[in-house]
Amino acid sequence: MRAVVALNSGSSSIKFALFTLDEKDRPELSAGGKIEKIGIAPRLSIRTAKGETLHERDWEQGAALSHAELLEYLFFWAGEHLQGHQVIGIGHRVVHGGTEFAAPCLVDDAVLAELEALCPLAPLHQPHNLAAIRAVSALQPDLLQVACFDTAFHHDKPEIASRLALPRELHKRGIRRYGFHGLSYEYIVRKLTELDPALAQGRVIAAHLGNGASLCAMQAGKSIDTTMGFTALDGLMMGTRCGALDPGVVLHLQTQLGMSAAEVEDLLYKKSGLLGVSGISSDMRALSQARPPEADQAIALFARRAAREAGALITLLEGLDGIVFTAGIGENDADMRSRICRKLAWLGVEIDDSANSMNADVISSSQSRVKVRVIPTNEERMIALHTISTIRGKRDA
Amino acid sequence: MRAVVALNSGSSSIKFALFTLDEKDRPELSAGGKIEKIGIAPRLSIRTAKGETLHERDWEQGAALSHAELLEYLFFWAGEHLQGHQVIGIGHRVVHGGTEFAAPCLVDDAVLAELEALCPLAPLHQPHNLAAIRAVSALQPDLLQVACFDTAFHHDKPEIASRLALPRELHKRGIRRYGFHGLSYEYIVRKLTELDPALAQGRVIAAHLGNGASLCAMQAGKSIDTTMGFTALDGLMMGTRCGALDPGVVLHLQTQLGMSAAEVEDLLYKKSGLLGVSGISSDMRALSQARPPEADQAIALFARRAAREAGALITLLEGLDGIVFTAGIGENDADMRSRICRKLAWLGVEIDDSANSMNADVISSSQSRVKVRVIPTNEERMIALHTISTIRGKRDA
Repeated sequence: MRAVVALNSGSSSIKFALFTLDEKDRPELSAGGKIEKIGIAPRLSIRTAKGETLHERDWEQGAALSHAELLEYLFFWAGEHLQGHQVIGIGHRVVHGGTEFAAPCLVDDAVLAELEALCPLAPLHQPHNLAAIRAVSALQPDLLQVACFDTAFHHDKPEIASRLALPRELHKRGIRRYGFHGLSYEYIVRKLTELDPALAQGRVIAAHLGNGASLCAMQAGKSIDTTMGFTALDGLMMGTRCGALDPGVVLHLQTQLGMSAAEVEDLLYKKSGLLGVSGISSDMRALSQARPPEADQAIALFARRAAREAGALITLLEGLDGIVFTAGIGENDADMRSRICRKLAWLGVEIDDSANSMNADVISSSQSRVKVRVIPTNEERMIALHTISTIRGKRDA
Repeated sequence: MRAVVALNSGSSSIKFALFTLDEKDRPELSAGGKIEKIGIAPRLSIRTAKGETLHERDWEQGAALSHAELLEYLFFWAGEHLQGHQVIGIGHRVVHGGTEFAAPCLVDDAVLAELEALCPLAPLHQPHNLAAIRAVSALQPDLLQVACFDTAFHHDKPEIASRLALPRELHKRGIRRYGFHGLSYEYIVRKLTELDPALAQGRVIAAHLGNGASLCAMQAGKSIDTTMGFTALDGLMMGTRCGALDPGVVLHLQTQLGMSAAEVEDLLYKKSGLLGVSGISSDMRALSQARPPEADQAIALFARRAAREAGALITLLEGLDGIVFTAGIGENDADMRSRICRKLAWLGVEIDDSANSMNADVISSSQSRVKVRVIPTNEERMIALHTISTIRGKRDA
């Protein structure tokens, strides 16, 4: 059976999914899983599409195991246990496509060199994405590999949306607003077009609210602007990330409080957001159940900032036809959806509380002027779809 | 004749205004002026309320002249030429009142020490404000001095509007959103209440668009939120300041491009904004007349970001009744007002082009759902009013 693999390799985890292809090249999830806590005590779990455990393994003394070694183990295990799958290609989530890569592409040495040159734009993520590509090359040199970019969906937004108010030469050097979560937004557009083609042609705010979080303003399925900018630190408050922050604060932490740039980076990426404001947890579920007022303050600030940014993007869209919530919080947290939508009630957003509490597909009331939907995102499937079409493109060429 | 002086002492300039008081303690501008280019080649000019030159002086070799020495010259000149004025107090613009100072106050040694402790929150401005207070004390130890804070108008905004998504201990240490341009906004509220009391009770966006620029969301004349935050670097794009900026950019400039914190500070405060994007000028008037597309790009980005932030604040207000434009650009740049208002047309904002081109008091059309006004700001008068009422408060006490 022909199959493709979707791979998302981060700093401390590798997520993967195996999709089989039917006769029309449509992907169906066969198995998936993740390796977590890389660099500490790696833990691998593999499950079927139905969630049954296929394999689990812990390396309690495995701090020294590299991404490449863990991928080698995974490939070895798959070769033994997932026989009958003829993997025709592997798609990778690559966080940064810079200004050049507007669409997925097959990776060769030249492409890899170009992607390597983008590492300074995403030093925390890009190197891990590329290391996985190299590791797969070493294991299976002939396997087609496809790079799928988190920036690509935003590539064709209006040029002015990419501008920071900085000297022009910095823009030329790549310091511009790219936007991220593109694979999620592409999937949302695809799914929304199936479910509600009229709304997909309208003015939509897509809210990807997970541990990372952003909003995308879409018009007719295209990104017009988004809250993440040059890095994934910008925009909404997140689990541990600060989101948009007065740049004067970054300077103050260094010049007045004596922190180094590395310490500030650690603070803003790992100790801020819900975790920082609550002092309790980066996990919205934990905060929802927590009693102290600090937890509610963190939740309230998350909602306020999301609504505030939505208002900014709706202004660029010059009005609003729909909202789509997705990702962990967006798909499952009825209270947060309700908080955000209540702050947008003045725009004609009205929630059906019962539908909302059930995470229904459509959670707006019948008289709401704005349709509000919940669509579970699936970045792995989007990577699989890109991988298949990119390989077909090569075959047809 | 009784009089008060309003003083605004910055890093390279001192602005001042002398107001006489009538029998009801109402201030009337008598003379005003500024000392510019302090530290390079100071230049003093003093004019009457009607704009006639009273005195001019250049110190071409005066780079070493301190703020205190220049103030001493000014006091000496005033003593000689403005006889018949009995100065009962002097009001100072003080940029930062921290969390304590919610209103103007008489300065004594204890207050001065508290204000001194706030210098790390505004190291580029606060020390110059306080140096002027000390210089006046040395010249006229018995003169009553009043500190008028740019943060005070925003002091009572909702607590959550002061929160950054950073660890709680940093909030406790004063790293929070204060907001600035408060003296201008206070004046606007006062004036709007005279001109249009119904609108003053409604939901208003005040747009202070000068070389520094911010928006304030007002409800019933109170600040609900504003675009400047911890520092005056946040929010809108400005003449030379970047406004809101992905904090990841600040880190990137240091860790990837090797800039020091001091170099980044200089870049973000002095080389960004309209100047950086256009590569031509920080002055909107110069850009409006410039031909290159870079000038129009800078203007377009300024308008886009102002409209985007207005949308964010309008969401917090849950709708909009009015807009007030003020400060250099806001009072005089019909094209910029038109650009911003067109982007808010979906909210029912409609401009009367003829009224707008004349900088009329009301520039919205008769059918506009949102009333749009131009109100020239007057921070010096606001300082004078605060100074008079603070001195009266002391006298009555």
